[in-house]
Amino acid sequence: MMAKKIIVIGGSAAGPKAAARARRMDENAEITIFQKSPDLSMASCGYPYFVGGFFDDRNKLLCTPTGAVRDPKFYWNAKGILAKVNTEVTKIDIKNKKIEFKDLTSGEQGSQEYDKLIITTGATANMPPIPGTNLNGITTLQSMQDADYLRKIRDEGKIKKAVVIGGGLIGIETLEALHLAGIELTMIELLPQLLTFLDWKMAKLVENYLKTKANVITKNGVAEFLGKDGKLSGVKLQNGTEIPCELAVVAIGVKPNVKLAKEAGLKIGALGGILVDEHMQTSTSDVYAAGDCCEIKNIITGNSVLAPYGDLANLEGRVAGENVIKGNVATFPGTQQTGICKLFDYGIGITGLSESKAKEAGMDFEKVVNASPDKPGFMDGKLLITKLLAEKTTGKILGAQCLGPGDVSKQLAIWATAIKGGLTVDDMVNADFPYAPPFSLAIDHSIASAHILQNKMHGIFNGISSLELKEKLDNKEDLFILDVRGADEYEQTRLGIGETLIPIGMLRKRLNELPEDKNKEIITYCKISLRGYEAAVLLQAHGYTNVKVLEGGVAAWPFEKEK
Amino acid sequence: MMAKKIIVIGGSAAGPKAAARARRMDENAEITIFQKSPDLSMASCGYPYFVGGFFDDRNKLLCTPTGAVRDPKFYWNAKGILAKVNTEVTKIDIKNKKIEFKDLTSGEQGSQEYDKLIITTGATANMPPIPGTNLNGITTLQSMQDADYLRKIRDEGKIKKAVVIGGGLIGIETLEALHLAGIELTMIELLPQLLTFLDWKMAKLVENYLKTKANVITKNGVAEFLGKDGKLSGVKLQNGTEIPCELAVVAIGVKPNVKLAKEAGLKIGALGGILVDEHMQTSTSDVYAAGDCCEIKNIITGNSVLAPYGDLANLEGRVAGENVIKGNVATFPGTQQTGICKLFDYGIGITGLSESKAKEAGMDFEKVVNASPDKPGFMDGKLLITKLLAEKTTGKILGAQCLGPGDVSKQLAIWATAIKGGLTVDDMVNADFPYAPPFSLAIDHSIASAHILQNKMHGIFNGISSLELKEKLDNKEDLFILDVRGADEYEQTRLGIGETLIPIGMLRKRLNELPEDKNKEIITYCKISLRGYEAAVLLQAHGYTNVKVLEGGVAAWPFEKEK
Repeated sequence: MMAKKIIVIGGSAAGPKAAARARRMDENAEITIFQKSPDLSMASCGYPYFVGGFFDDRNKLLCTPTGAVRDPKFYWNAKGILAKVNTEVTKIDIKNKKIEFKDLTSGEQGSQEYDKLIITTGATANMPPIPGTNLNGITTLQSMQDADYLRKIRDEGKIKKAVVIGGGLIGIETLEALHLAGIELTMIELLPQLLTFLDWKMAKLVENYLKTKANVITKNGVAEFLGKDGKLSGVKLQNGTEIPCELAVVAIGVKPNVKLAKEAGLKIGALGGILVDEHMQTSTSDVYAAGDCCEIKNIITGNSVLAPYGDLANLEGRVAGENVIKGNVATFPGTQQTGICKLFDYGIGITGLSESKAKEAGMDFEKVVNASPDKPGFMDGKLLITKLLAEKTTGKILGAQCLGPGDVSKQLAIWATAIKGGLTVDDMVNADFPYAPPFSLAIDHSIASAHILQNKMHGIFNGISSLELKEKLDNKEDLFILDVRGADEYEQTRLGIGETLIPIGMLRKRLNELPEDKNKEIITYCKISLRGYEAAVLLQAHGYTNVKVLEGGVAAWPFEKEK
Repeated sequence: MMAKKIIVIGGSAAGPKAAARARRMDENAEITIFQKSPDLSMASCGYPYFVGGFFDDRNKLLCTPTGAVRDPKFYWNAKGILAKVNTEVTKIDIKNKKIEFKDLTSGEQGSQEYDKLIITTGATANMPPIPGTNLNGITTLQSMQDADYLRKIRDEGKIKKAVVIGGGLIGIETLEALHLAGIELTMIELLPQLLTFLDWKMAKLVENYLKTKANVITKNGVAEFLGKDGKLSGVKLQNGTEIPCELAVVAIGVKPNVKLAKEAGLKIGALGGILVDEHMQTSTSDVYAAGDCCEIKNIITGNSVLAPYGDLANLEGRVAGENVIKGNVATFPGTQQTGICKLFDYGIGITGLSESKAKEAGMDFEKVVNASPDKPGFMDGKLLITKLLAEKTTGKILGAQCLGPGDVSKQLAIWATAIKGGLTVDDMVNADFPYAPPFSLAIDHSIASAHILQNKMHGIFNGISSLELKEKLDNKEDLFILDVRGADEYEQTRLGIGETLIPIGMLRKRLNELPEDKNKEIITYCKISLRGYEAAVLLQAHGYTNVKVLEGGVAAWPFEKEK
């Protein structure tokens, strides 16, 4: 039997993973990776941390855990894979099962036949279609070269002011990196919120935190890059404001690289990605695709989505690499669109559906916000704010957003697994998680979130979100607002929305200070609304018919507070 | 309607939780907690961290997150719960639905009627039945008073040598605490391994690590406490060895406190705990029990177990507290016996079944060991060693053990949720977890563990455990052992078991150094056995028929190494 010829176009994440998996499935296959850039298998998600100075050796982004640089020599010696770098594939010829390529160093052209082809061409960072984009000082953070450029800026320490355009994951991570480089920063976001994968309120809490580190402008795009002598000197916003800066990092999302695939006649989806089935096979047999260039399925809604995440690229590449050798035995079920980022002391992320996505998908859901620590106070526990969604009819977990200085990663991993397992709120209220004080509270934050949501779904806990309360306040509805914290807590911070303070320990004795009208709407809260919940139960027992608990209490209040 | 009368016997974890839940279900119920000790709702799992100096204020163990001490006044004012401390319940009269009690301060006796009773009497630390237990300097770490005693020893700094008797969770945590107090320690364990919830090899890795901090003696119990003038001066082991010490902490497990329940005629299980159903109801209606005094169900095997964990006590208490008010609407499904502890830089834990427990239960399972980091090297990733078990026929995850300096808590939480959701290895290979370099590798350690186990179940990966290899070595079987790490890695540490070094990058060129007999048994490995796996695939492709990969490689080798 002839050795199988496998070609992989693209050598960043999905490509090398697919090639390595194919190699492990078939030692005799001839496997070639074509890579346009000079580097291979770059840990591109690590760029912001190289720029931010978390480590100094750029080779760490290109190395195996034991320190071997993943260059063509490594691929040939360790894996028997031929990696052609600085080589651009210019055409896919489906009919004749070959590709054409050009060596970008020598200019030489050539062609090579394949039995199976894997397209992992990734995505390209978007640039706004505005004047001035050719000025020096404007960059993205998508390539190793971008990372080197920004790292040099850090090391030289000359630049004083920069803007980051786009408040998504990459924008947030880049802002942190440049802030750590001592640069004064402004974040500019066209939409009304940062991190659009979160619901507005959760994103607002991130924005409030970010404002302690940088200027933040939302609902305002960049209209023009301003410059002098070919060098960036500032940006002009759509509302006319000018912001002086010597550096602008553009992070307004990515577009799948599908030119080759499109020209070859492969089907492209409505979102602009290559269409693949659950085997990562394209519309043409013998051609597979994986990574940021593809559209994949959201496993909750069944809809196609673009999900340009490094972890998914690897998993998709693994499936494609197995299938080109073994036939379509491996499947990739799709994504829950789990995402996380670090922003200084905060972790911020989501798995599954946000409220707005659940609405879009026509889901009937219940939701709750839980603000509480990840660990006991005596072990220096940190606050976490979780927003949890479950389907009303089945109780199935639909999505979880989590943020704060606490252990966000564990919380999201729990909910990601719960969603994958089709677990319900009732299942999660008695989850058996690893408990010891260095790691969690006796009732883990995730279980506490499930408890509150279960109470809400059982009608025991009548919650109101901060957004709903704000709307009532703006509409000047007639409310009695009851803060049941201690006087000392009230002295430190208060919402300042016309509330009355009665500490929970005095409430039973001071019920006479409550409204006479037992049908009046009462809102109770405390720091995290556990005492607020106890107060509501107490008032209900004393005949009040319309008592609501402000979910997440003072800790999750996204609007201005009095101090 | 008359107010419902609820009595709770026991005020540590399950009791206060049950009382608080009952209060939230019914503001009008009369709820009384009887507590023998002076303290209420102690964070008893936090004792080792108070002793170890992680914090100094003992009140933190008794406080709400906002700093209110949970004393009888707090319970009355904030929750409307009457808490009688220093009060021992001496009898439960099932027929007349009342209890008798004695005030331990005044000596006064009394009785009180109940409509519903909740027994949360906890467990008592075992003491070995040997001479000398009445000497000064012998303690357990189970009560607030024990914690105060050991903390005083830390603060005084007079004691130089101590032994910890029993290598379970509490023993391990206590050893860390006393080590941090500057005391020279010896751990003494009667059984052949520490932490018997782990399999032998995993426990051996813990022991190897612990030996860098303290003396460790296994397979040897304490035969006698030695003393002078009423003060402990040493312990004598069963083999005659004497170890001088001024302090001995006994941590050889706990026994459920069931005397009251037994005398009242409630059914006690074969393991010595109070029998309860899924509603936490005992054999008598109107009487519930929760926490360490109960037997509960292992949800994987269906067997009854004792699971004296603080988190379960809270969850069980919550169910009992709801059911005494609402009737049996809430259920507690049982435990996966998830446990975790911190030992200096290590996290160590398990969820679900160990290999030995799975064998006992007659399960047909496959298993694998994965040693790999939790995060990228450039983000200072730390090693994790996971042992994962899945049912052969269904692929369902049965159990996971994890240890190391990496993020063990997240790994165990993932597997605990996966077991709860009935997820299989095939489900977990494409899990969508929160990925960014500060939090995980692109392919999370848990997913990598699933990948290796899937490869093994599909016959792609032929693994051998270090124990199996050791047995072959001891039997002097004819093996070719191949280390495919780099020469520099080999210089630093090697197994020293007659291995041949051929770095993976040279293997394709140096195949001639392999045995001529293609049927000879070959064992390959590297640091974590990823390159070892690639080597095995390579050799198999070159006709070798009996190649096995040493699972977890050098990192998970529990026996002595050459340095």
